[in-house]
Amino acid sequence: MAYSSARPRAVVLLSGGLDSATAAAIASQEGFDVYALTVAYGQRHLREIESARAVARALGVVRHVELQVDLSAFGGSALTDAIDVPKDRDLAAADIPATYVPARNTVFLSLATAWAEALGARDIYLGVNALDYSGYPDCRPEFIEAFERLAALATKAGVEGAPLRIHAPLIRLTKAGIIRRGLELGVDYGLTHSCYDPDALGRPCGHCDSCLLRAKGFAEAGVKDPAL
Amino acid sequence: MAYSSARPRAVVLLSGGLDSATAAAIASQEGFDVYALTVAYGQRHLREIESARAVARALGVVRHVELQVDLSAFGGSALTDAIDVPKDRDLAAADIPATYVPARNTVFLSLATAWAEALGARDIYLGVNALDYSGYPDCRPEFIEAFERLAALATKAGVEGAPLRIHAPLIRLTKAGIIRRGLELGVDYGLTHSCYDPDALGRPCGHCDSCLLRAKGFAEAGVKDPAL
Repeated sequence: MAYSSARPRAVVLLSGGLDSATAAAIASQEGFDVYALTVAYGQRHLREIESARAVARALGVVRHVELQVDLSAFGGSALTDAIDVPKDRDLAAADIPATYVPARNTVFLSLATAWAEALGARDIYLGVNALDYSGYPDCRPEFIEAFERLAALATKAGVEGAPLRIHAPLIRLTKAGIIRRGLELGVDYGLTHSCYDPDALGRPCGHCDSCLLRAKGFAEAGVKDPAL
Repeated sequence: MAYSSARPRAVVLLSGGLDSATAAAIASQEGFDVYALTVAYGQRHLREIESARAVARALGVVRHVELQVDLSAFGGSALTDAIDVPKDRDLAAADIPATYVPARNTVFLSLATAWAEALGARDIYLGVNALDYSGYPDCRPEFIEAFERLAALATKAGVEGAPLRIHAPLIRLTKAGIIRRGLELGVDYGLTHSCYDPDALGRPCGHCDSCLLRAKGFAEAGVKDPAL
C-alpha cells in the first residue's frame, strides 16, 4: 500500500457539528493524516452534511467519505422521523430525549472500524462528550471502552495484535472547554452547524438541546458564536 | 405501539445464504415474529440479495428491510473490490482470507441493534458459525459476547435494564449439523445462495470457500443440495 506521507492515518467521524470539528483538529494536531467519515443517516435536514464538507475542506483532510445509511428505514427518533424535536428542555433531566437515534454511535463506530481496517489505520477519533450532552447512552466513557474491546475481537488487525484505539478527546470536557480547545487549534466554528431543527434557510432554531448546549458553551467561554 | 400478534419480535440478519436462512427458521420456531434485515453492502454480485427476498417470503417474515450500506467505498475485500476470490483454498489454513470484509459483522449487528431498539425488540439472531467457516474474526463466540456487552451499554433499552440478547444458534454446529437442523424446520435450501463468485447467470463457482463448505456440509449430511 502506498502512503502519501509519513504521518499515520486516523479515521475521524465528522458530523459537521462543533464537537466533531474539534475532534478532527485534535487528531491532526496529534500527528495524524485525517480520513473524515460523514454518515448521511437519514437525518431530516442536510444542513449538517454541508457543514461537514466545509469543515473537511478547511481542515485539509486527506479524504472525506460521505456514506448513505438510511437509519430512517428503522424509525424511532425525532431526528429521522416526523416526531417533534423537543424545545427548551431541561438539560439536567435524567431521561433520554426523543432526539436519541437508536444505536447511532454504534453504527458510526462500526463503519469507522471498517474503513480504518481497510486503510491500515489503527486510530479512530470521535467527538462524543459526556458532560454537556443530551444523556444519550452511547456518549459515555463505558460505551467507548466497550467498543474498543469489541473492535479488538472483531478485526483482522486486532487478532493479529494491532487493535484499534478509539479516541474520544472531548469526553470529559465541558462545551466551553471544547470551544476553547478548538479556538486554540484554529477551528472556524462559523463553518459548523449544531441545530437539530433548522428552518428552511438552514438557520438554527435556538431552542433544541443542541442549540441550548452550544449557546451555553460560547457564553461560558466568553466568545461570540461566529455561526450566529 | 401496536403489536400485530402476541409473539415477541426478533431482528434476524438475513444474507440469502444457508446459515442465515436456518437462523431465521430457528428464530421463528423459538417463538418470535421475524423482522429480517438484509444489508446490501456493495458485494460484487446481487444474487444473494435475490435469495434473501425468496427466503424471507418463504419464511413469512413480518417485515423485510433491505438497507444499502456501501462498504465498497472503503475497499479492502475481495467481496467488494476487484480482488480475485480465492479458489480451492485449504479450509484448514489458519490465515484470514481475502474474502474477509473488514468489520462486516460489527456493521451488521450495529444496524440490527438500531432496528431492534426502534421496534422494541430484545432479540437479534444471526447465522455465524465458528466451526465450518473461513476463519473470519467476527464469527467467533467471543466476538458475539463482546457485542452483547456493548449493546447493553449502547442502547436506551440496555440502560433501562432490558439489554439485547444476541442469538447465534449455529455458532457451534458443523455445516452438516446446520443443514440437518434446517431440514427439520422445513427450510428450502433451494432458495439459498452461498457462492462468493457466481457466473453471469448466478450459478455457483464450486471452488470458493463458501461453495466448498456448502458441498462438504451436504455431503456429510447425506443430502443432495437442492440449489444445484
